[in-house]
Amino acid sequence: MELLEKRILSEGKIKPGNILKVDSFLNHQLDPGLFYQMAQELKRLYEGEKITKVLTIEASGIAMAIMAGHAFGCKALFAKKSKSKNISDDVYAVEVESFTHGNTNTVVLSKEYLSSDDRVLIVDDFLATGAALVGLSGIVKQAGATLVGVGIAIEKAFQGGGDKLRAEGMRIESLARIASMSDDSLTFVQD
Amino acid sequence: MELLEKRILSEGKIKPGNILKVDSFLNHQLDPGLFYQMAQELKRLYEGEKITKVLTIEASGIAMAIMAGHAFGCKALFAKKSKSKNISDDVYAVEVESFTHGNTNTVVLSKEYLSSDDRVLIVDDFLATGAALVGLSGIVKQAGATLVGVGIAIEKAFQGGGDKLRAEGMRIESLARIASMSDDSLTFVQD
Repeated sequence: MELLEKRILSEGKIKPGNILKVDSFLNHQLDPGLFYQMAQELKRLYEGEKITKVLTIEASGIAMAIMAGHAFGCKALFAKKSKSKNISDDVYAVEVESFTHGNTNTVVLSKEYLSSDDRVLIVDDFLATGAALVGLSGIVKQAGATLVGVGIAIEKAFQGGGDKLRAEGMRIESLARIASMSDDSLTFVQD
Repeated sequence: MELLEKRILSEGKIKPGNILKVDSFLNHQLDPGLFYQMAQELKRLYEGEKITKVLTIEASGIAMAIMAGHAFGCKALFAKKSKSKNISDDVYAVEVESFTHGNTNTVVLSKEYLSSDDRVLIVDDFLATGAALVGLSGIVKQAGATLVGVGIAIEKAFQGGGDKLRAEGMRIESLARIASMSDDSLTFVQD
């Protein structure tokens, strides 16, 4: 998606440790017009797929989820990081490793909002190792729902998480795919 | 806002400790159509106020902020809970008490996204004691920006936080104001 690639090139900042900061439009300051366009693009990509729920994980996936839900005309769900180790029977629960923060979170979703009738689109702002996606797809599996596919704003393709999951049969549409990143340059995967 | 009041009456669940659960449409499962309507209502209420930034706090304010930002045609910002005690010079920082979780969070916003030129609308899903609002308005003050007003989905008016801040001169528009809540009944403030 050219609009997003342009924003990454003009506003993204590369930090040590393969960190791409896109705080000015994607996950601290949010550009609603860009989110609207991204949601329209996901709608185009998943046209005819009869999505019934959009699913993400708090916090930075929420903006994309609500805009995508609005585009698809369905509810948006965000899985929550559990504050307690006692997980009730009312929730689907998975463990998600965070490489950024070096810890593991238990992530939960109330069972009443996802069932075997649902056709789910998972969305998130970033895809790197794929840990969040594995967790969220585990929730979809626990619900017996159908995972139609995934919509990502920025995939750090060089970290390999996306291609590993594609090889397992997951449909992943990333609106910008970064092939390489260094202190002073950034290139995108060419389709 | 009648649409929101109806949803609270039909789907809200009252739990011990004055907790109102509206997980099915406001802060776990999200109803994008309702968020769109709430954003339109805020736009109507703050018409002509030349809002340049919408500000909220992660996580559950984010959906409302991006939809409101889209309605106003401006950027949306979410202040982040800081994971570290070391606060850099690049951020505005405030302490926000959480009554639900019984702790205090340091909440930060990058200085580059809010300046003295900005006219700010703070939004959030809930207003009870007003602790989050006090924190967010502190960030606006640190930036030297103008706080135009506040837009809240559900105000628990009986907890008094909103009226205390109104008495100090803050403009607060709440789309549903709960006058009283008990195990089996809920009433709204009549305008």
